[in-house]
Amino acid sequence: MPTIVVDVMPKSELLDPQGKAVSGAFERLGVTGFGDVRIGKRFELTVDGEVTDEVLAQAKKLAEDVLSNSVIEDVVGIEVVE
Amino acid sequence: MPTIVVDVMPKSELLDPQGKAVSGAFERLGVTGFGDVRIGKRFELTVDGEVTDEVLAQAKKLAEDVLSNSVIEDVVGIEVVE
Repeated sequence: MPTIVVDVMPKSELLDPQGKAVSGAFERLGVTGFGDVRIGKRFELTVDGEVTDEVLAQAKKLAEDVLSNSVIEDVVGIEVVE
Repeated sequence: MPTIVVDVMPKSELLDPQGKAVSGAFERLGVTGFGDVRIGKRFELTVDGEVTDEVLAQAKKLAEDVLSNSVIEDVVGIEVVE
């Protein structure tokens, strides 16, 4: 069944404490070459049947209204994966 | 600065309670047409300078060793985004 992948990230102007924790861990491990780390969510929605324009529009609406909090997050990607 | 995106998902054979909660919410909202929902993590690593093969190999190693728990998660994607 086809899958729609929705990517949600914290708004770029917001502090990302989890990301800071990971980049701190990189430093403690002696890893260099990487700057900021930001962590978001990746949703995989399996679609019953074909991905029509209506289904994609519905997924976009769900991404904005249900899968993300528009106050602190941005939907950064919606992609159909066969 | 270039960014490497790492996508991590729960192993497909594992129960995804968060995903079940979201698909339950879809049903309560009267949304149809979608089957399972699975939720994973999306990491954005900013790279200081160019993304060389070495940097990409290092990002792959970090993805396996630091950004994911190989017992319950799979790294499903590593992508360079300019």
